[in-house]
Amino acid sequence: CISANFAKMSAEVADLPSGPLDIYRNAASFSWKDMLRFIEGDEIQKVFRTLEHDPVFARRPGEDVPIEKMRELAFLRVKQLFRYDLLPDYEFYGNPWKYVILNDCLGMYDWVYKCLPHIQNTIYVVILRHVNESVCLQFFGCFALTELSHGSNTRAMRTTATYDPSAQEFVINSPDFEAAKFWVGNLGKTATHAIVFAQLYTPDQVCHGLHSFIVPVRDPKTLLALPGVLVGDMGKKVGQNGLDNGFAMFHNVRIPRENLLNSTGEVTPDGRYVTPYKDPNKRFGASLGALSGGRVSIIRMALVNLKQALTIAIRFSGTRRQFGPKDTEEVPVIEYQLQQWRLIPYLAAAYALEHFSKTFYMNFVEFQVGLLQRDKSERQSELGREIHAMACAGKPLGSWTAQRGIQECREACGGHGYLAMNRLGDLRNDNDPNCTYEGDNNVLLQQTSSYLLSWLHSKPPVKQGRIESPLHTVDFLNDFHQILESKFTASTEEACMDSAVSVAAYKWLVCFLLDGSYIRLQQQRSMGKDEFEARNNSQVYYCHSLSMAYIELTCLQRFDELTRAEDTPADLRAVLRKLCGLYGLWCLSNHMPHCTRVSGYLSGRQPAEMIQKAILSLCAQLKNDSVALVDVLAPPDFILNSPIGYADGQVRTLPLPPQSKAPQPILTLSSLRPLGLCQEAL
Amino acid sequence: CISANFAKMSAEVADLPSGPLDIYRNAASFSWKDMLRFIEGDEIQKVFRTLEHDPVFARRPGEDVPIEKMRELAFLRVKQLFRYDLLPDYEFYGNPWKYVILNDCLGMYDWVYKCLPHIQNTIYVVILRHVNESVCLQFFGCFALTELSHGSNTRAMRTTATYDPSAQEFVINSPDFEAAKFWVGNLGKTATHAIVFAQLYTPDQVCHGLHSFIVPVRDPKTLLALPGVLVGDMGKKVGQNGLDNGFAMFHNVRIPRENLLNSTGEVTPDGRYVTPYKDPNKRFGASLGALSGGRVSIIRMALVNLKQALTIAIRFSGTRRQFGPKDTEEVPVIEYQLQQWRLIPYLAAAYALEHFSKTFYMNFVEFQVGLLQRDKSERQSELGREIHAMACAGKPLGSWTAQRGIQECREACGGHGYLAMNRLGDLRNDNDPNCTYEGDNNVLLQQTSSYLLSWLHSKPPVKQGRIESPLHTVDFLNDFHQILESKFTASTEEACMDSAVSVAAYKWLVCFLLDGSYIRLQQQRSMGKDEFEARNNSQVYYCHSLSMAYIELTCLQRFDELTRAEDTPADLRAVLRKLCGLYGLWCLSNHMPHCTRVSGYLSGRQPAEMIQKAILSLCAQLKNDSVALVDVLAPPDFILNSPIGYADGQVRTLPLPPQSKAPQPILTLSSLRPLGLCQEAL
Repeated sequence: CISANFAKMSAEVADLPSGPLDIYRNAASFSWKDMLRFIEGDEIQKVFRTLEHDPVFARRPGEDVPIEKMRELAFLRVKQLFRYDLLPDYEFYGNPWKYVILNDCLGMYDWVYKCLPHIQNTIYVVILRHVNESVCLQFFGCFALTELSHGSNTRAMRTTATYDPSAQEFVINSPDFEAAKFWVGNLGKTATHAIVFAQLYTPDQVCHGLHSFIVPVRDPKTLLALPGVLVGDMGKKVGQNGLDNGFAMFHNVRIPRENLLNSTGEVTPDGRYVTPYKDPNKRFGASLGALSGGRVSIIRMALVNLKQALTIAIRFSGTRRQFGPKDTEEVPVIEYQLQQWRLIPYLAAAYALEHFSKTFYMNFVEFQVGLLQRDKSERQSELGREIHAMACAGKPLGSWTAQRGIQECREACGGHGYLAMNRLGDLRNDNDPNCTYEGDNNVLLQQTSSYLLSWLHSKPPVKQGRIESPLHTVDFLNDFHQILESKFTASTEEACMDSAVSVAAYKWLVCFLLDGSYIRLQQQRSMGKDEFEARNNSQVYYCHSLSMAYIELTCLQRFDELTRAEDTPADLRAVLRKLCGLYGLWCLSNHMPHCTRVSGYLSGRQPAEMIQKAILSLCAQLKNDSVALVDVLAPPDFILNSPIGYADGQVRTLPLPPQSKAPQPILTLSSLRPLGLCQEAL
Repeated sequence: CISANFAKMSAEVADLPSGPLDIYRNAASFSWKDMLRFIEGDEIQKVFRTLEHDPVFARRPGEDVPIEKMRELAFLRVKQLFRYDLLPDYEFYGNPWKYVILNDCLGMYDWVYKCLPHIQNTIYVVILRHVNESVCLQFFGCFALTELSHGSNTRAMRTTATYDPSAQEFVINSPDFEAAKFWVGNLGKTATHAIVFAQLYTPDQVCHGLHSFIVPVRDPKTLLALPGVLVGDMGKKVGQNGLDNGFAMFHNVRIPRENLLNSTGEVTPDGRYVTPYKDPNKRFGASLGALSGGRVSIIRMALVNLKQALTIAIRFSGTRRQFGPKDTEEVPVIEYQLQQWRLIPYLAAAYALEHFSKTFYMNFVEFQVGLLQRDKSERQSELGREIHAMACAGKPLGSWTAQRGIQECREACGGHGYLAMNRLGDLRNDNDPNCTYEGDNNVLLQQTSSYLLSWLHSKPPVKQGRIESPLHTVDFLNDFHQILESKFTASTEEACMDSAVSVAAYKWLVCFLLDGSYIRLQQQRSMGKDEFEARNNSQVYYCHSLSMAYIELTCLQRFDELTRAEDTPADLRAVLRKLCGLYGLWCLSNHMPHCTRVSGYLSGRQPAEMIQKAILSLCAQLKNDSVALVDVLAPPDFILNSPIGYADGQVRTLPLPPQSKAPQPILTLSSLRPLGLCQEAL
């Protein structure tokens, strides 16, 4: 299927412009176009070209755009994107991966253009089931879940929807300011309707938990708030300022009974609550289920940010020359061991996450198809648990790797990285909320460790006494005891470079941390701590590390399988194997205290030093490939929008002298004269 | 001396407003006002009050100010600061520490107000020696050192100043765009004169190295560029946008012979070069010497940023409640072990860096006094080397600790931390360049390791065969061999908490890394690598870690001494000792692979786990003190400018409902209607 597209692609992918990066491109061990075909498929170019040729999307690196203007531009561009209809439904259902590719492309330009149509589309689908189309055509919607005082703890939300049978209406209320809905995308300036999550109360004062309701918030004609609705803009954020996040409070806002989105429960006209779910916990889970895809998509968003930062930093490092063996002869900074070690492991991580995010998305699609088909099988429910555990650790892995990687890229580009026009600041600022929304990273990791701990002693359905999860990420726990007894056996630097070594070490590490976490929890319980406290006191060094090690193993293992898969092109294998080996050792080196402190797994000075040497060797070996490797990940210059990262590698840090004019004075002499040192004026 | 101020202070420091933080303030083990007196002295309040009561300094949290406006404001405020003359010369000479306090206060408000008067003052002093006062009164100056293609590598700079004896003038030239002066603060919009660093050529074509020259760049009347000068603004940066960094190129710009700043060498009217230095390397060092104070001050700048971020995050964590043992009862997030572990070690680091930055500044003042007194003693020159080594690692320590700490604070405040109004984004963005300017952190660390290696085998003057450096930071190397043989001996969790344990471990670590770095270098040399390559290939895991370990030891050791000093108030000692113990163990835990991989120093599972337990215990013990500890570091609310971090701990995340108005529509219906889902319009 991939190879069928090769011919088509060859004609489409243009050569990159010649320039100072040629030395590295010519030295690469593989064809970047072959890698591009293998990694990306053939969709990406169309979107890029569309944006580049439309003046609505024109922009200038580093321009200082006021927030209000940003939002106007965002609004105009979203309209334009709807006109383009870049991914018609039939194409999406034919190949759901295209949805990710489209979001990647739009997000590379600016994440607001991923978020806005996404929010709009999702809501449109939800609403169409409930209101007639003519209403729908006038509205612009938003999701209102998070409250001022509660984000991660959704059960503690306090907005209420109380049913009034006399009017057959729900009455929506925010008990106080702390219960105001917060962070609602689109709500700041534009939304006319909100899908509000509120605690549903029947007239008998019984609370049936969180449900969602369609609530009109603004008059579509004037965009003024409707009676009883207090709505406003949250103001400037650290990044992503094209999106108008808003807040809302409700005071006795009445909506028809039909505005309850009844996927998990319904209220009869006379006020009885009816639900297909018997267990209120399951109902709660199902009502949030629709939102869980967010974490899967954040892994990808973070990766896309990291890819662009790496493109900028590695191309810059291939052309920027500093110091050298003699004063007169300087070398590109990528030649320095330290620069390689700062950047190339993140490049390996980007390739690992590329494959992980893709395969994980397809897992999620499989799960969603099951939901649509109302699959009630045990496998479907186990798949849900496994995907939840993976997403709750995958989002932290992706967002933190990107956040740290972008910061390293910023620093690796020195002062040039600090110029706004080179975009590393924006990439970092726009990536930052990935650590927070859809569940704070640190809070989410607890979900993953709970899942893993559940396998240790209280086993869910096990096939013939063996653990077998739908995606097989925990199957190795069958060998829990043998693995705990195993030892690090690689005896040379070269042997360490094989990713099989890291995979084995990671299996040991997960078992070790699982064992340690369980013991720690038991200690806490035996000290009389309640479950809440026992869990809290087992996070640092135990459950937290366990969840990260598990997802790193999963990501590494999938990458390792890719490098060995039969349909992986032979000419790409060598470089992919190096990247995979490096990713494994580099991640592992963050867990060294665990690996070495026990006399068992990895003891003495030699293996630890061997791993360090292997990391440095792999960085050095990948150095000549690094420019070609980012060429594969890079969008066109117009999208990248970072002059130090353009494909031709030419220094283009500022308006070049021929184009620049004498700067205009912003201050007149009269304002200047009394300045500072003019004693007489003081 | 400190106690003499106590009475004065008691009257001045106001109580903090009552609120939800009272529970922690009441539970604190010490008096925050006593700590404030001990740490800060009595200067800080005056500056804060001055700014708060002047409408020129009024501002609103999270406001979206365009760059041009920011710069106008900066300019007006700098003028105002000069009027206030907050630190007259006689006060500065009486107590040079006041200079730091003043900068802290201005920097807490916005770093641009530290930079601008600082740049101006420094230049004023330099220039006054050369031109008459009437010229001086009209000018606004800047320092032009860095070039587009060279920052850290100052020797490679290419701007030229060629002496023309026929006119008795220097001719300044930028050979090409890569040699354009870059990052020059004030030059973007306002500077009239630049101190330009250029390679000095005499008519015989001999280059005498980098010298500084006063070059007029703009007409003071019109602010238009002078003939031959191309000058412009660098545009938006990631942060610190109040400062107008600029660039300049020179084409045959002629300046009088007298404009050479002749501290290191002079050119006679007929074109002969005369210098008091015989060794051109020494001359080069001396010409840069005047700039080395920058690194000392960056340590403090980074600390000030970190202090503010911690104030915000810890106060927020003391009031923000999430989850709890029951759904109905939520606990402040600072109660969670994970939250404590994320924030409190950075609080300990802030206290450690507070003392380090203060004592190190006083060391630097001593060195400067020696320079002014033309002290040519061996001690003075050794002091210079030691301060250089400390500053080259101290700046990385300070800036990275702050950068990571602020990011952790941002994430620890969840979505609220992502609102621009809460300032964590600005603090991070404004701190970021501290990692880069005055020498890239990674490049600087090489200077420190070279200094340390120089003591190992090629000993500079040693008193009676013993190493004794002026500030005693390397004296322990006398016991190099014994230390290498030493072992970690603490046998209980409590014993680990004593900072003496960390100090001993760090001494071992520095010796271990020094030994390892030396061996690594020798290996490289024996493989036939030249010195340049040998050094480069010994950075990762060796020299780089060595420099960091050395400066962490120095910082820790000074803090440790403070906690044991006689004039440290008795009632503050307990909390200071906990902070010091935590700082030591937390830093040490980043080096665990080194400590454990050798069978020697720290072996087996037990000690490593003991250290982890001790870290968590100390965090838990300091939890109730943490709010009071940030109260000591916090500026008044007006300066902090972060609603989630205000002293009263009240939630004030957005304009509260009573004050907020219905938002104004930014889009009309006609622009809204064709949006997205309106099929007929597509």
